[in-house]
Amino acid sequence: MPEEDTAGTEPEILAEHRGAVLLLTLNRPDQLNAWTPDMQHRYVELLERAEQDPHVRAIVLTGAGRGFCAGADVAAAGPPGTDGHPRSDHSPSLPIRLRKPVIAAINGTVAGVGLVAALFTDVRFAAADATFTTAFSRRGLAAEHGIAWLLPKLVGLSTALDLLLSARTLPGTEARELGLVDRVLPRGDVLEAALSYAHTLATECSPAAMAEIKQQIYSGLDTGLETAVSDSGERMMAALRGSADTESKRSDRAKRPPQFPPLE
Amino acid sequence: MPEEDTAGTEPEILAEHRGAVLLLTLNRPDQLNAWTPDMQHRYVELLERAEQDPHVRAIVLTGAGRGFCAGADVAAAGPPGTDGHPRSDHSPSLPIRLRKPVIAAINGTVAGVGLVAALFTDVRFAAADATFTTAFSRRGLAAEHGIAWLLPKLVGLSTALDLLLSARTLPGTEARELGLVDRVLPRGDVLEAALSYAHTLATECSPAAMAEIKQQIYSGLDTGLETAVSDSGERMMAALRGSADTESKRSDRAKRPPQFPPLE
Amino acid sequence: MPEEDTAGTEPEILAEHRGAVLLLTLNRPDQLNAWTPDMQHRYVELLERAEQDPHVRAIVLTGAGRGFCAGADVAAAGPPGTDGHPRSDHSPSLPIRLRKPVIAAINGTVAGVGLVAALFTDVRFAAADATFTTAFSRRGLAAEHGIAWLLPKLVGLSTALDLLLSARTLPGTEARELGLVDRVLPRGDVLEAALSYAHTLATECSPAAMAEIKQQIYSGLDTGLETAVSDSGERMMAALRGSADTESKRSDRAKRPPQFPPLE
Repeated sequence: MPEEDTAGTEPEILAEHRGAVLLLTLNRPDQLNAWTPDMQHRYVELLERAEQDPHVRAIVLTGAGRGFCAGADVAAAGPPGTDGHPRSDHSPSLPIRLRKPVIAAINGTVAGVGLVAALFTDVRFAAADATFTTAFSRRGLAAEHGIAWLLPKLVGLSTALDLLLSARTLPGTEARELGLVDRVLPRGDVLEAALSYAHTLATECSPAAMAEIKQQIYSGLDTGLETAVSDSGERMMAALRGSADTESKRSDRAKRPPQFPPLE
Repeated sequence: MPEEDTAGTEPEILAEHRGAVLLLTLNRPDQLNAWTPDMQHRYVELLERAEQDPHVRAIVLTGAGRGFCAGADVAAAGPPGTDGHPRSDHSPSLPIRLRKPVIAAINGTVAGVGLVAALFTDVRFAAADATFTTAFSRRGLAAEHGIAWLLPKLVGLSTALDLLLSARTLPGTEARELGLVDRVLPRGDVLEAALSYAHTLATECSPAAMAEIKQQIYSGLDTGLETAVSDSGERMMAALRGSADTESKRSDRAKRPPQFPPLE
Repeated sequence: MPEEDTAGTEPEILAEHRGAVLLLTLNRPDQLNAWTPDMQHRYVELLERAEQDPHVRAIVLTGAGRGFCAGADVAAAGPPGTDGHPRSDHSPSLPIRLRKPVIAAINGTVAGVGLVAALFTDVRFAAADATFTTAFSRRGLAAEHGIAWLLPKLVGLSTALDLLLSARTLPGTEARELGLVDRVLPRGDVLEAALSYAHTLATECSPAAMAEIKQQIYSGLDTGLETAVSDSGERMMAALRGSADTESKRSDRAKRPPQFPPLE
């Protein structure tokens, strides 16, 4: 059951535990879940809590109703530079700094800061008929929250330029062809597929290994091969001496699935 | 109408204004527009003039006749190291340092330095039957003008190695599959499609936003996420305080398309 | 004919000269060519010898029997940290530091360190029904030998995360779609296609140019455009003054294929 906040009103993001998977649902369906300062604060709070919760091994992010997130809610934002304004900061990119995997289930319209948040998750599932747009250049805005840094690493340099310069709108099917999302499905199947994938990560993959892999991949974007190899050597030695590999071998001998311990 | 140069002979690159789009046509059709020192000088001159011209908001580059550009014209070049020789320099990569978007309409054969010039534009449209080759390894040459740096960022590491090591020839259709170009069309439709795309950029997208996006994307290739996010925060604040965002909101209220000011 | 080692027993990697192409075959077919410390030592030795041998212009790597390489042979490995253990080191990534092109013919199952070795070759051919998996996260292990650094550069950031976080198994056809391999063929045709491609590199492309291109591409991953362009300018000048370009022009005039000299 989704939790309510202390005031008894429905919170702007719902949080629901499904086994070891935490499902977060952007919850302003009448505004296509447009991003507000309150939503941003709650997003950070929920992710940081999940990061510390040993019962959570994977996180899924989706939207309530017809959309995923239609971008910043200009009406809800205060003036630029005030606390009420959703400033370009590290919040939408927070998932890449977590140790736990975050999966997006893009159920519908995704634009602007909503697209930034979706792209900064680790793996993306999308509805074939969801509409995607970067939006910024048609609003007179630069590329926000690090999306100009991220996009070439996801889809290559010229697709990044195409999407950010033109702010053209494309469907989920083309988003898959361009590498903007990892899987495309009929709209009714997207959330289930993302939850199923997250459930597999939560039950079959080592939390410690996934935490290391996330750090290796994201830090490897900024380092050379020499550093990456030395680093992976140290991590591998630690893992081989530690409990994870022992559990992997024990479960092999017992012909049962491994039971990896949670992150501390 | 294409302009003539002062000598009255037809210049090696034609320049034509189509509304806010500048169309540049490599113009040595009998030599498949092979690249010469004179062509290179004119390329730089025309692009730098367009960059300063407030009436130009987007640039399209194509070739006259059957080819786009068949590579360096060895016959026209002076000896290595002299001024007449097309040296490996920053000219073919100039478009990525401009504030204005440059679109390639690859109408036919593209090879060697011609391919370098095409790849250093921002977005590429190509004829399905155009032939592509890097050419260098079969001429005993290293990868010129920064193409070895660029190619992995466009098509990934191993496609870059495949194309540069083997210098194999591939058609426009495969170029699209590999990510070497962004759109593929019948030969007769390529220029029109590129001009139409450029026209959309020129009329619907903010020149200031596009200038910032180009700089964000290309500089982001060399920086980490932290720098990219801080940088985009500063740009966003400036835009929100400036006229571009105000125009975007004004046009929303008036239910008309925004009229973005030109670059100064 | 494959050579035998001095002890008369069959070596763990077979080496066979096919014209200017060296064919290396991982040779523990009963264990799906699982990687051992001995295999690793021989891999390094054979590659270093090939690098110095002027008769070798390209290298093909494949596996004997049904598999390519099923990962580390845990039974054959000594305890972690001892010499017998296949530590995370620079051996599987050695091909990217060679001057000569290395092509993988992935004939069947490829997993763990076997996948790392395959991905660190320059170009990959794979059987449509070969099975691919990173394996690490399901063994409680971090991403080994630099694969977390390499994978985003081959397939983009989110496919890299998908494959390393989930360690899911995928067929050669999907490996091609994701950019993990460059060509996919029926199993019986993979080795022949890889040998044919390597033969073309060996006979039609300049060894000096290929050596420079490899270095340009891999070093360009860590440098900015300015450095890359200056560097390619110097390389081009050297080539134009040297024998490679002269041979290219001579063969043009004589209307015969160029005969490029071997690497020294």
